[in-house]
Amino acid sequence: MNVAQIIAAKRDGKILADEDISRLVAGYADHSVPDYQMSAFAMAVYFQGMTTHETAVFTKCMVDSGERLEWPSDHTVVDKHSTGGIGDKVSIALAPLLACCGVKVPKISGRGLGVTGGTLDKMESITGYRTELKIDEFRSIVNQNGCSIAGASKNLAPADKRLYALRDVTGTVPSPPLITASILSKKFAEGLDSLILDIKWGTGAFMKTIDQARELAELMVHVGNEMGVKTSALITDMNQPLGNMIGNAVEINEAIEVLRGIGPSDVTEVVLALASRLLVQSGVHSDLQNSKQKLNQLIESGEALNRLAAMVESHGGDLLTVRPVAKTNPLKLNQSGFVQQIHAHQLGLAIIEMGGGRKQIGDPIDHSIGIEFLVRIGDRIEAGQPIANIFCETAAADHAAKLVESSITLTPEPIDSPKLIVEAI
Amino acid sequence: MNVAQIIAAKRDGKILADEDISRLVAGYADHSVPDYQMSAFAMAVYFQGMTTHETAVFTKCMVDSGERLEWPSDHTVVDKHSTGGIGDKVSIALAPLLACCGVKVPKISGRGLGVTGGTLDKMESITGYRTELKIDEFRSIVNQNGCSIAGASKNLAPADKRLYALRDVTGTVPSPPLITASILSKKFAEGLDSLILDIKWGTGAFMKTIDQARELAELMVHVGNEMGVKTSALITDMNQPLGNMIGNAVEINEAIEVLRGIGPSDVTEVVLALASRLLVQSGVHSDLQNSKQKLNQLIESGEALNRLAAMVESHGGDLLTVRPVAKTNPLKLNQSGFVQQIHAHQLGLAIIEMGGGRKQIGDPIDHSIGIEFLVRIGDRIEAGQPIANIFCETAAADHAAKLVESSITLTPEPIDSPKLIVEAI
Repeated sequence: MNVAQIIAAKRDGKILADEDISRLVAGYADHSVPDYQMSAFAMAVYFQGMTTHETAVFTKCMVDSGERLEWPSDHTVVDKHSTGGIGDKVSIALAPLLACCGVKVPKISGRGLGVTGGTLDKMESITGYRTELKIDEFRSIVNQNGCSIAGASKNLAPADKRLYALRDVTGTVPSPPLITASILSKKFAEGLDSLILDIKWGTGAFMKTIDQARELAELMVHVGNEMGVKTSALITDMNQPLGNMIGNAVEINEAIEVLRGIGPSDVTEVVLALASRLLVQSGVHSDLQNSKQKLNQLIESGEALNRLAAMVESHGGDLLTVRPVAKTNPLKLNQSGFVQQIHAHQLGLAIIEMGGGRKQIGDPIDHSIGIEFLVRIGDRIEAGQPIANIFCETAAADHAAKLVESSITLTPEPIDSPKLIVEAI
Repeated sequence: MNVAQIIAAKRDGKILADEDISRLVAGYADHSVPDYQMSAFAMAVYFQGMTTHETAVFTKCMVDSGERLEWPSDHTVVDKHSTGGIGDKVSIALAPLLACCGVKVPKISGRGLGVTGGTLDKMESITGYRTELKIDEFRSIVNQNGCSIAGASKNLAPADKRLYALRDVTGTVPSPPLITASILSKKFAEGLDSLILDIKWGTGAFMKTIDQARELAELMVHVGNEMGVKTSALITDMNQPLGNMIGNAVEINEAIEVLRGIGPSDVTEVVLALASRLLVQSGVHSDLQNSKQKLNQLIESGEALNRLAAMVESHGGDLLTVRPVAKTNPLKLNQSGFVQQIHAHQLGLAIIEMGGGRKQIGDPIDHSIGIEFLVRIGDRIEAGQPIANIFCETAAADHAAKLVESSITLTPEPIDSPKLIVEAI
């Protein structure tokens, strides 16, 4: 089949042969298949889907479009990927914790675009921290230090980078097989043995329902395992921010608190759940309870925090010189009631409004601004009680305050808090 | 909405606002909307469709992407469009017949690609006939002679030309709203008052079922009328060739026979049905029966043939010097039975095989080859009876003969002939 026939076959709901998927993706990678064919194919996939096997082949071809990191055979190489949310600073605490357990974590992260922040932007709140490394330097930091958080080299899954930009402007983002191929191709180019996914659902997540999150999680887990990488997923709540801090410098500070044993319980719980599951899955620890105990010891002893400090140092930064946080404005509500709903998405917009996130690729970031969000779903609030601190010294603080204020829906009736860790897949 | 949002809205089955359709098509026309967005949009339309009104707006924007012919206000400007079939030489007889009735027929035709021939290629079987005219010359021939058959200027619906080529390589051809917009934008750029469509269905047509043909006919008629052009359609049979002759020079000869009153009855019937309906619809004649009588008189008197000769002369050709037809090879079957089915598509392939059609845009054409197809569905054939003459002097005749032979399915039971004119819409 030629490419037009491959597109038509997918349009008609056919299951594509490996060689046809490979012809399409390899052609896209070497620019012989133009964007206009790939975007039509992506739209056909949006409507007709792809099987687990088709998605695995598609993903593999995306990985093959570039380099794949290689590691000594005695290394156990692992990573975590989150579908993104508000206040998600999990990676920053998770990577050094895992590294302390002897696995290697070559964490390639992205920048924030839209309402969810990017781990690279957060790391750059640390003065001197370099996120752009040559592959050799990245590999050597991982080998020596056990973990590194850096930006992607242009040579890792380059076809995915182009397809991602193409999907963004052609209405083909919300397709589970394409999301799966995009995430897994970037991750598997890291040369992983084992991967855990944090699939978030809720008002601050890409997936607005548990069912959507479960569908994506199942597809990703099946595809990952079919590709020979041990893969599992947790579905976690994103109907309210994770932790209290949202922003860049403020999130680094909160991640440090987690490694000091004094972080918010929800962030700590998600970090420990992901880490323990990944360590058991990789054969490092025998069971989840035992793994969590060992992880808690690494926190209590300060070993995990020291590991973060060492990683930061190897990137040219100093954990003691996180960029300053802007002065704060406390925010109060005039009403009383129980917190029924938090439009977490709006908190992300407030961060962008204050310059802490991007409207367009390449926009500069103000690392100092942030929000400390003080209430949780189910909390009882009295009129006049502070609900948030806005870290911002410009006039944008007022607009942000309005967004934060209107993000909260109160109800007179008591209400349960949502389940933080919904299920494991 | 920006273009990505317009694509996403159509993907989600929304009905688009006029200004959004206009932004998309005008942007495509001025190259600010790239092919990769248009192809994704076309695939979304394939799955979600467009309403009559959306299709009319889309079509109007396509017309607006270029020039639109203008005519004196006292002219009644009409045309016919066929969705294409095997042996369809209707336009060549129809245009001069209509011109004799006082209406103007600025017939812009295309070249053959794939199994259905092109009227321009057929006209070029006439020595000296020029199909590429400047718009002024085309307009002046129509004004003087009442009709002209010529190729499209690059300035008529240029965005449609690009979209047509794009759809061809992105699996987005078989979409009724896009087919409608493509056909009607080219036709309405001619500045028509009235249009009749010949929607063909069957083994030699694009539409394989009557239902598909009816769906397309209804959409096109509704869109045409919504755009202010009186539009109607006939659904006609294309389960066997129209007339006996298939090719280029041989089809000119058969069209001349129609205008001499000695043409095959099916071609004559389709020509008269389309012409009479179009003339009544345009207010030239009062009813179909009366119109057919007058058309028959124009044939009997030789007036219509003279009009064709005059048109050919104004294009630099001479109707008496149609290019020679290649020598013939009669073809017989070894079996007996009733003709049950004719795979008309295969007859088109046989023409291409002999060089009378194109495999790729720009391929040269041999005007002299052709097929005289001697049997009709329902005919009783005896073994050894000639079923076709193959006009071809090269070795390709053998391959063509096999295609013609295998195009016929026989049955021992008598079978009815299919209805030629199925319905009017």
